[in-house]
Amino acid sequence: MRQVAVVGTGKTAFGAFPDRDLRSLAVEAGRKCLENGQARPDQIQAFYLGNFAGPSFTGQNHLAPYISTALGMKGIPATRFEAACASGGSAFFHAVSAVMAGLYDTVMVLGVEKMTSQSTARVTEILASAGEVSGEIAAGSTFPSLFGMIARRHMFEFGTTRENLAAVAVKNHENGALNPDAHMRKVITLEQALNARMIAEPLGLYDCSLISDGAAAVIVTAMERAGEFNRKPVRVLGIAQASDYLALDQKDDITTFPAVRAAARKAYELAGLGPREVEFAEVHDCFTIAEVIATEDLGFCERGEGGRFASAGCTRRGGEKPVNASGGLKSKGHPVGATGVAQICDVVQQIRCEAGERQLTRHSIGLAQNLGGSGATCVVSILGAS
Amino acid sequence: MRQVAVVGTGKTAFGAFPDRDLRSLAVEAGRKCLENGQARPDQIQAFYLGNFAGPSFTGQNHLAPYISTALGMKGIPATRFEAACASGGSAFFHAVSAVMAGLYDTVMVLGVEKMTSQSTARVTEILASAGEVSGEIAAGSTFPSLFGMIARRHMFEFGTTRENLAAVAVKNHENGALNPDAHMRKVITLEQALNARMIAEPLGLYDCSLISDGAAAVIVTAMERAGEFNRKPVRVLGIAQASDYLALDQKDDITTFPAVRAAARKAYELAGLGPREVEFAEVHDCFTIAEVIATEDLGFCERGEGGRFASAGCTRRGGEKPVNASGGLKSKGHPVGATGVAQICDVVQQIRCEAGERQLTRHSIGLAQNLGGSGATCVVSILGAS
Repeated sequence: MRQVAVVGTGKTAFGAFPDRDLRSLAVEAGRKCLENGQARPDQIQAFYLGNFAGPSFTGQNHLAPYISTALGMKGIPATRFEAACASGGSAFFHAVSAVMAGLYDTVMVLGVEKMTSQSTARVTEILASAGEVSGEIAAGSTFPSLFGMIARRHMFEFGTTRENLAAVAVKNHENGALNPDAHMRKVITLEQALNARMIAEPLGLYDCSLISDGAAAVIVTAMERAGEFNRKPVRVLGIAQASDYLALDQKDDITTFPAVRAAARKAYELAGLGPREVEFAEVHDCFTIAEVIATEDLGFCERGEGGRFASAGCTRRGGEKPVNASGGLKSKGHPVGATGVAQICDVVQQIRCEAGERQLTRHSIGLAQNLGGSGATCVVSILGAS
Repeated sequence: MRQVAVVGTGKTAFGAFPDRDLRSLAVEAGRKCLENGQARPDQIQAFYLGNFAGPSFTGQNHLAPYISTALGMKGIPATRFEAACASGGSAFFHAVSAVMAGLYDTVMVLGVEKMTSQSTARVTEILASAGEVSGEIAAGSTFPSLFGMIARRHMFEFGTTRENLAAVAVKNHENGALNPDAHMRKVITLEQALNARMIAEPLGLYDCSLISDGAAAVIVTAMERAGEFNRKPVRVLGIAQASDYLALDQKDDITTFPAVRAAARKAYELAGLGPREVEFAEVHDCFTIAEVIATEDLGFCERGEGGRFASAGCTRRGGEKPVNASGGLKSKGHPVGATGVAQICDVVQQIRCEAGERQLTRHSIGLAQNLGGSGATCVVSILGAS
């Protein structure tokens, strides 16, 4: 297998953009990415699109060639990858794998979602289609309620508290406030988080990520060709995707995600390192409890300790293992299909030391964890300075 | 690149099945495929799902792990590939590429669509989302009308007649009548085809493919491991995917599809052979005019001659280049996401000499051509006896 590098990144701001359509967001991210990578469209040999529910949100399907041709890439394979909220990560996984294996030298991965043109009720319904519709969703569940049950069980098993969850929210808002591209640049206090209105008990408003529009793109190439592009290639050290049941009721234990553990194990193995060597991470905090469990499943702390790990400040920018220095899905925003690709952009930015006010002190090995549904898909990517 | 073989196939019947849901169709095809390949679920290292619009048709998204876990495949990467009506072909392309490149030894590709639970008007709308929604579709086009325009232009440029188109329909119905799994097993006459009610002038009812439910699956493995499975491996000689603009008005010429020509050129090159060596083909006859153009773009006849090629009987089972011996989308049915995978099953069946009454005399090298939208995606696969 060949070594693979990320040689360009591009992102739109995340937010609610009533005047922008899906394609214009995607094209903006794609163009910025080409510019950042100093690449021409004719150097791109395949186009990997991460998108969860464009057809449901916007009515437009067949999105991959729709976007690639608008970016001036004609003729090349252009395909959409869907894996719920891990669609962007999955597109990145398949693209990196293809370059590793020598199928292509250079590909673009682009993630996009345009969500805010629908009502919150309709968005909730579309998101719920990533759960088991004929079972848990028909019974009245939504993603906030599914993760509410997960949080309740985590509290019961391990003594996790609402204060622990609120600590995640406070930290991510603090980080996001420093991110010029974040959807909600707003510092909040622990009291605000704890006193916010309930969405799905025990998860309050600040325990939930945002509904956002946005796009992100990266260019992936074989390490030996990286010199043709941006002068700061970032290596993909390890990457893996894994799967599990959709429905919570089919899982043996809802306080840990086997797909995350499996993907992490494989990615660590490929990278030849362990959680201790990872200096910082972007994890999938669709809800605060998801970040708590991610820190456990990725091996940053012991099983059941994720809540206390957050409250102790370990995951803050100055802590032992900074998590979501970008603000995470919580504050940066969560345009579903874009999220997994944006995480890669954020990790690359830190490694390149281009993260501005959010720049971390130790930033040479970073991990991104992208989750689909309530744990049925997970992609873990580990990147490092080359 | 390693040699790759198809070692198992499985299909549901195609038709309107009000009592079957999407997953039960997929699981039936997957189980038949495992059985046919004499494979166990734990031998499958990745799951590639082709599905166009499951979320719109059924409300369920995140379909790949939803189906793979029901087939007893847990933990492995499970991803949905969407490329409009070429979703199944695209999943096959990516799976074969991954095995060629050594990423996996053995993967399952499964295509599925459940369409008939929606009204014909709603199905037409969902299908139209594979065209440019904000342009040609907003202006009132549907896929029958887009292909109607393509047919009109082909008639104007090359003297193609409605009789030529009807000859395609008559042939495919004749073939489909011999296929026990076909949706519409009904022989029709040229007069019936010509006198059927108009759908989108000049395309009548029998010029249009069917709205169907169904699923199809194949197991792909590295040739050196083929011995572990079914004793009749079929080699993938060449394969390629290509793309083009979605909207008809962006194309220089609507009587030929550059994505088909590009994919065919690449697939022929990889296979080291040309159209003359291809003994039979399954092509994407979503409309009769699409088969006419496919025979030209694939090089089976000269540009503009596809209509006369059909009327002369060249594409009949006993002709010089049998096309759609299965009955094609026209008579076999067109459950969109399943179509590209079903084509592979049909080609494999012929090569293995297991096609029953439809069995062709010359059947050692077959080609499958799967088209998305009005030519924005195309996958061409060439298979041969090993």
